[in-house]
Amino acid sequence: MAEEKIPFTPISTIGEFKLIDKITKDFEINNTSTIKAVGDDAAVICTDRHQVITTDMLVEGMHFDLSYTPLKHLGYKAVVVNLSDVYAMNAYPKQILVSIALSNRFSIEAVEEIYKGIKLACDHYKVDLVGGDTVASPKGMTISITAIGETTKDKLTYRNTAKEGDLIVVTGDLGGAYIGLQLLEREKKIFIENPGVKTDLEGHNYTVGRQLKPEARKDIIELLDKLNIVPTSMIDISDGLSSEVRHLCIDSYVGAVVHEEFVPIANETYNTALKFGMDPITCALSGGEDYELLFTIRPEDEDKFKNHPDFSIIGEILDFNLGVKLHTKGDNYHDLISLGWDNTKS
Amino acid sequence: MAEEKIPFTPISTIGEFKLIDKITKDFEINNTSTIKAVGDDAAVICTDRHQVITTDMLVEGMHFDLSYTPLKHLGYKAVVVNLSDVYAMNAYPKQILVSIALSNRFSIEAVEEIYKGIKLACDHYKVDLVGGDTVASPKGMTISITAIGETTKDKLTYRNTAKEGDLIVVTGDLGGAYIGLQLLEREKKIFIENPGVKTDLEGHNYTVGRQLKPEARKDIIELLDKLNIVPTSMIDISDGLSSEVRHLCIDSYVGAVVHEEFVPIANETYNTALKFGMDPITCALSGGEDYELLFTIRPEDEDKFKNHPDFSIIGEILDFNLGVKLHTKGDNYHDLISLGWDNTKS
Repeated sequence: MAEEKIPFTPISTIGEFKLIDKITKDFEINNTSTIKAVGDDAAVICTDRHQVITTDMLVEGMHFDLSYTPLKHLGYKAVVVNLSDVYAMNAYPKQILVSIALSNRFSIEAVEEIYKGIKLACDHYKVDLVGGDTVASPKGMTISITAIGETTKDKLTYRNTAKEGDLIVVTGDLGGAYIGLQLLEREKKIFIENPGVKTDLEGHNYTVGRQLKPEARKDIIELLDKLNIVPTSMIDISDGLSSEVRHLCIDSYVGAVVHEEFVPIANETYNTALKFGMDPITCALSGGEDYELLFTIRPEDEDKFKNHPDFSIIGEILDFNLGVKLHTKGDNYHDLISLGWDNTKS
Repeated sequence: MAEEKIPFTPISTIGEFKLIDKITKDFEINNTSTIKAVGDDAAVICTDRHQVITTDMLVEGMHFDLSYTPLKHLGYKAVVVNLSDVYAMNAYPKQILVSIALSNRFSIEAVEEIYKGIKLACDHYKVDLVGGDTVASPKGMTISITAIGETTKDKLTYRNTAKEGDLIVVTGDLGGAYIGLQLLEREKKIFIENPGVKTDLEGHNYTVGRQLKPEARKDIIELLDKLNIVPTSMIDISDGLSSEVRHLCIDSYVGAVVHEEFVPIANETYNTALKFGMDPITCALSGGEDYELLFTIRPEDEDKFKNHPDFSIIGEILDFNLGVKLHTKGDNYHDLISLGWDNTKS
């Protein structure tokens, strides 16, 4: 549970420029649109396709806790969070820029660990590190990543283009990252109260993995392409299903119904939620950080992926005036917002 | 000298999404390459030109001090710092993404002030705000900005392409921002020791302005275009002239000589440096944050801007083995690095 035991060489011993050389030297260029990566006033990119650009900032003590987050995982996750936004536009990420502010509590070795995770993500998702900034901070760590992706104009998928009659589809399963966070927070509490006790996360690999090392759904974008499906709208699930369905509906000026019985929840998530005395559906609807994709398709596209294990059709898009509803297993209808996702947000 | 007196409404009263709506609603789109700005998982851009992308992070207590930096100026400067890197590629900035982490010490009104400055910069430089992130921080403020610019392939200017025989040109004048910082730090010290004393920055408008509200040299890029000059290499001066000349030489694998007598220093900078007991040339060579441009041209291009007040030819590019030298007024030659820019860095 404690921060990793690695040697401690102060960053001040080599300075910013040498540190940048050290951490970026192993990165390779994967994409033809990357003309110039790290090393000038700016990176240079050239593409004739449409580009999507997104940025996210992660702050220590707010978005991550180093008492249970390995630095390499943090680097990986910081990239994934951004790539997920690129995939949510039905685009492929190509470049990232990474800025990190660090207090003198962090060593060169710590920065190298973070960049090992960043490199793993770059290799896995075939993304080029093209720039960034490494600066000192009086306290804690802040990571800011910008990701750039590409797609063709006809594939580009916005969140404000869902139409009445569309089917609502969600990928993978939900609530796992939230349960993983509860487990890690519980273990942290036990460790603080009783440092001699060994952590017990056995049987929770899936949910803890969802929290510490999430993946962005590159495979889904490739699959949609292969199946010749362009979603009518799409958004990634970072804040919880309820919140994202509402986002998509408000922006598209439509209503929706989500059927509780079709919301995908993994067995481990389901059982652990019950052990915590939580309703699994609340975790799935309101727990964030799953980084699955939520999209809508025309009903005639349904046959193209019938029974595919990665897709769950969870509802339909309705007229705006019908609101955004949850149809419960007990056959009741609630406003989707009323499930209190705001309270459960980490 | 104290933080501005403006009403205090906690950000928590409206939440992140409404705050983003509030601060971004007045921004206009200036560029045809901006297809979609704020409001989806990612912004969308489309251009057939080469793009340059750069990012900078500013941390409270390290890069800015709110006891003497008005929030609006901070927003303006945070944008300018990034645009300067775009101009340094001989490109025109088109889009920015702005991420801010804020502790609960900052109100909605404070964020609005910062965004007023960001908007001023966007309007002045005709840049579109297309995305960003607004997050909570346990302490202090961090601003991370990514800027995207465009140019044609033949205009793109790198820092590693200077050639022996080229002339070294610098724009504007140097050392002013550093002297401005010394003045503000002096006033802060006086204020802390004796809060009743009024600040005395009279006669220092120029240098204080260089520190608090610098401009990026958009006009120079336009002028070079008009004069039909493509520099053989270029870099912006953010860390001080010595450091940037060395950067350019090392990356281009060349040497250089800079003639002290031609290094441009404004009268106010010169006189105030002397009052502080500092050597004005040291301030010009080693003081950072002037955001002027340093570039090299072929000698045959010299006639195109002869006697133009914005350009100073300060030296020549030499063979790598001759090193990077300062030719002093006393006709001595020193290594340019030996002037101790590392010590004077703020």
